[in-house]
Amino acid sequence: MYKPISFVKPILSLIGLSLFSFAHAQNQQAQVPEPMPMKPQMTEFWEPEVKVITPGAMPANQMMPPPSDAIVLFDGKDLSKWRSKKDGGEAKWKVENGVFTVAKGTGDISTKQKFEDYQLHIEWQIPSDIQGQSQARGNSGVFLQDPSEEVKQPSDYWYEVQVLDNYNNRTYANGQAGSLYKQKTPLVNAMRKPGEWNVYDIIYTAPRFKEDGSLFSPARVTVIHNGVLVQNNAEIRGHTAYIGIPFYKKHGKAPITLQDHGDPSKPISFRNIWLREL
Amino acid sequence: MYKPISFVKPILSLIGLSLFSFAHAQNQQAQVPEPMPMKPQMTEFWEPEVKVITPGAMPANQMMPPPSDAIVLFDGKDLSKWRSKKDGGEAKWKVENGVFTVAKGTGDISTKQKFEDYQLHIEWQIPSDIQGQSQARGNSGVFLQDPSEEVKQPSDYWYEVQVLDNYNNRTYANGQAGSLYKQKTPLVNAMRKPGEWNVYDIIYTAPRFKEDGSLFSPARVTVIHNGVLVQNNAEIRGHTAYIGIPFYKKHGKAPITLQDHGDPSKPISFRNIWLREL
Amino acid sequence: MYKPISFVKPILSLIGLSLFSFAHAQNQQAQVPEPMPMKPQMTEFWEPEVKVITPGAMPANQMMPPPSDAIVLFDGKDLSKWRSKKDGGEAKWKVENGVFTVAKGTGDISTKQKFEDYQLHIEWQIPSDIQGQSQARGNSGVFLQDPSEEVKQPSDYWYEVQVLDNYNNRTYANGQAGSLYKQKTPLVNAMRKPGEWNVYDIIYTAPRFKEDGSLFSPARVTVIHNGVLVQNNAEIRGHTAYIGIPFYKKHGKAPITLQDHGDPSKPISFRNIWLREL
Amino acid sequence: MYKPISFVKPILSLIGLSLFSFAHAQNQQAQVPEPMPMKPQMTEFWEPEVKVITPGAMPANQMMPPPSDAIVLFDGKDLSKWRSKKDGGEAKWKVENGVFTVAKGTGDISTKQKFEDYQLHIEWQIPSDIQGQSQARGNSGVFLQDPSEEVKQPSDYWYEVQVLDNYNNRTYANGQAGSLYKQKTPLVNAMRKPGEWNVYDIIYTAPRFKEDGSLFSPARVTVIHNGVLVQNNAEIRGHTAYIGIPFYKKHGKAPITLQDHGDPSKPISFRNIWLREL
Repeated sequence: MYKPISFVKPILSLIGLSLFSFAHAQNQQAQVPEPMPMKPQMTEFWEPEVKVITPGAMPANQMMPPPSDAIVLFDGKDLSKWRSKKDGGEAKWKVENGVFTVAKGTGDISTKQKFEDYQLHIEWQIPSDIQGQSQARGNSGVFLQDPSEEVKQPSDYWYEVQVLDNYNNRTYANGQAGSLYKQKTPLVNAMRKPGEWNVYDIIYTAPRFKEDGSLFSPARVTVIHNGVLVQNNAEIRGHTAYIGIPFYKKHGKAPITLQDHGDPSKPISFRNIWLREL
Repeated sequence: MYKPISFVKPILSLIGLSLFSFAHAQNQQAQVPEPMPMKPQMTEFWEPEVKVITPGAMPANQMMPPPSDAIVLFDGKDLSKWRSKKDGGEAKWKVENGVFTVAKGTGDISTKQKFEDYQLHIEWQIPSDIQGQSQARGNSGVFLQDPSEEVKQPSDYWYEVQVLDNYNNRTYANGQAGSLYKQKTPLVNAMRKPGEWNVYDIIYTAPRFKEDGSLFSPARVTVIHNGVLVQNNAEIRGHTAYIGIPFYKKHGKAPITLQDHGDPSKPISFRNIWLREL
Repeated sequence: MYKPISFVKPILSLIGLSLFSFAHAQNQQAQVPEPMPMKPQMTEFWEPEVKVITPGAMPANQMMPPPSDAIVLFDGKDLSKWRSKKDGGEAKWKVENGVFTVAKGTGDISTKQKFEDYQLHIEWQIPSDIQGQSQARGNSGVFLQDPSEEVKQPSDYWYEVQVLDNYNNRTYANGQAGSLYKQKTPLVNAMRKPGEWNVYDIIYTAPRFKEDGSLFSPARVTVIHNGVLVQNNAEIRGHTAYIGIPFYKKHGKAPITLQDHGDPSKPISFRNIWLREL
Repeated sequence: MYKPISFVKPILSLIGLSLFSFAHAQNQQAQVPEPMPMKPQMTEFWEPEVKVITPGAMPANQMMPPPSDAIVLFDGKDLSKWRSKKDGGEAKWKVENGVFTVAKGTGDISTKQKFEDYQLHIEWQIPSDIQGQSQARGNSGVFLQDPSEEVKQPSDYWYEVQVLDNYNNRTYANGQAGSLYKQKTPLVNAMRKPGEWNVYDIIYTAPRFKEDGSLFSPARVTVIHNGVLVQNNAEIRGHTAYIGIPFYKKHGKAPITLQDHGDPSKPISFRNIWLREL
């Protein structure tokens, strides 16, 4: 199937190809069209709107302590389990009062350790004086496996669970908190208010690849946001594509990355991060 | 494939069938062997032993409150959302101090409402003076969908997540707390001590059937025990078979049932039960 | 995550929204952005090129006869099992010498019967004097379930296995014969020459939906092209989107449709169509 | 859950264990019950009977020729691609008139090459003078991956698609031609008569394992028997267990094995075997 609406253009481009082939007869590698570039807004879906619910309230300082077999990625003291993503050096985000906060402009931070399948607990807080709207309000993200060092393209961003303030702040449904960014809308909006702590409990199954580099099985993820299921063993379609269509590229174990989004709003904070390898 | 060891017997039984067919020539319905009966111990697997871990400790009275879209099945006051499984009458388990306790001999209790896919939160406590060993120690169960009223056989028990005291109490691995009883061993043993509250967070996807009654897709379940993943979107193989091989039989929405196991040990208690339909 | 490149525009549109909301204070339904329109070429991927193989040669008149439990959709005689898609009237394609041929301009034809899961055998022939290039060369399609009568939008096209001449004719990989059109590239190119008969053996599992209209499980399809596997239980992402991103909309049993593509090349023919309900 | 019927026995065995532990206080490795042994007939299910259909008839000498990318495992001339399973030596089955026939007592034969995922075409013939009943009638099998050299136990048999004469010969449904032996009944019985050639077209996806040896994803198989779907991406539960419950054990690429079943009936023949790696 294709529709005649686009008929003239491909034919012209094929004529172009023929001429080119003639001129470069010894270079038999045919040139083929690149996919036409897209715009970000082409993959931003505002409808249907995600239902808003109120999660159960927990005492402000109640944190789920790590089980005995967990790798504690942040225990309130330091960022020794993390490094700067861009240069591999020290993670420069700010640790204070048992939490750490994005230090704008210092860049994303990644775990030193690489992971495959895991259960992850992570808590994050939107500052109570947050400003901005839509995506420009407390934007960050948890990249579940970040193979960008091993796989140079198509993207620096892979497998993101969105972090954003969506308490009384609507954005495109497939880009709000609890979404697989631009891939899968959360089942409900279970945000807590700015100033309160949000919790993600994430069960992640890494993708598997065949020897020839093709995909054997996609990544899958379950996300529980403040005790409420928002993704149920959802299939991840490939890298996190801000523009265009996601796809996969073979990689092995990879770190987890947190995003310094760099938007002009107030920086967000994290605490109580632990992980169990599965 | 089959192995000659069983050769004589089937041949004899086929001879038997031939004679029978001859004698009852007008009844063309051939009689075929029934599967040979099994014993319970044939489906009890003690090895490999499940790794024991210590879940994170929570304050004794800390309960995860229900989100705003939950159906509260027990809020500490009464069993008005439940009925006796055997006669449909009042649920006779004992409510006291915000919890309810199995009243031995009164039988299983089922929700009045029927469910399909859901997220369930349920807390349960083994009494601190529990006695007994292996399966005879605080045995109960959460039957995730109980169609036994609609489907008269093969069983009264369907899709059980085991409830049992496995704190320093070993039993067969596929029958311990967090197992899909006799179907799937939990990933780890995350029990709390008798006298402390255990929590199950369960994500259940009901089986689907075709019009002809055959299975379209099996039930699947994720179980988080005290904050620790013990079943990850695990496939359920059919009804809960204490004896023999599980299989499916077509059914629709069904209640959740809790088991009055009736063993001689002390009765267990439940609290804070809520469910979100998915 | 989002990238600041698109920052100004959403902010402006949000300002726009605020003004609009003020002016129409009694109409509380907020207006939200529509996804930006796409172009067809944005979802046409030429690379990587699909490997070309030669399928096993079969005698020209060798057809796989239907098994005893098949519904024969075309036995060489007439189109009595088919109707015109657009008006429900008689299927006007031309039957001759045991095959039928697209009668250009008469429109698509659909089976009178509706189906869910099935195994389908269908044979198709590109005329030996075919002309054109890329998509404009023997284009047609098998729409595995066509709910367009029940579901008025987003599309008239659903779940297409592409029919096209790709013997020495390259096109975008996700639009060539054996592709799930614009969704999934075939594993290999197993085309026979124009004038020879191609065979599709297709195993189709229909999507299932929840009561609320959301998707329970996507459609899946296995395609064997001339005896060679080209799709292995591949997931279908939604309707066949010539432009844009596919998605699902709840529907029930639906007919199979064959496409009168209307391109200027020679019309293609079909024979020996049978189906077994699963 | 467990039923009191088995209560006394486990308690006694636990008492036994306690005494044993006392006597061997320095050997802290607790002894646990082995699963009780089963009988073959416990996993033989005759009901419901599989529907019998008649597949499409093909000319006696019509074989599907291999595509250009196939590995031809038998082209009618010799068994050079095969070896004896038991000693690795020459495959001693008898080649004559373009087919090869089980030479009873010479043992199973395996491919020299090891495979993972593939599409397999294999033709097999029950001799026209076959005798016997139930399983004792033309019994053989295709073992889709045979890691028995790498994995010494639990079994010499793995992932079998049953080969048997079930033309007017009933046996247990999960052990007839087209079954995954003792795991999955075929959708229909599509047998051809003794003396005619049966064809299996098989799409096999190998199991994947995690580093720790646990199962990541089970093997899956689609089987088309004489052009008729009998297994649709069916899950394989583990090794082929003539007695007991199947389970998995980690392995890598493995050969395909054909069974010399050794029963007293006439030996069966094979021809036209080819495979495409996926």
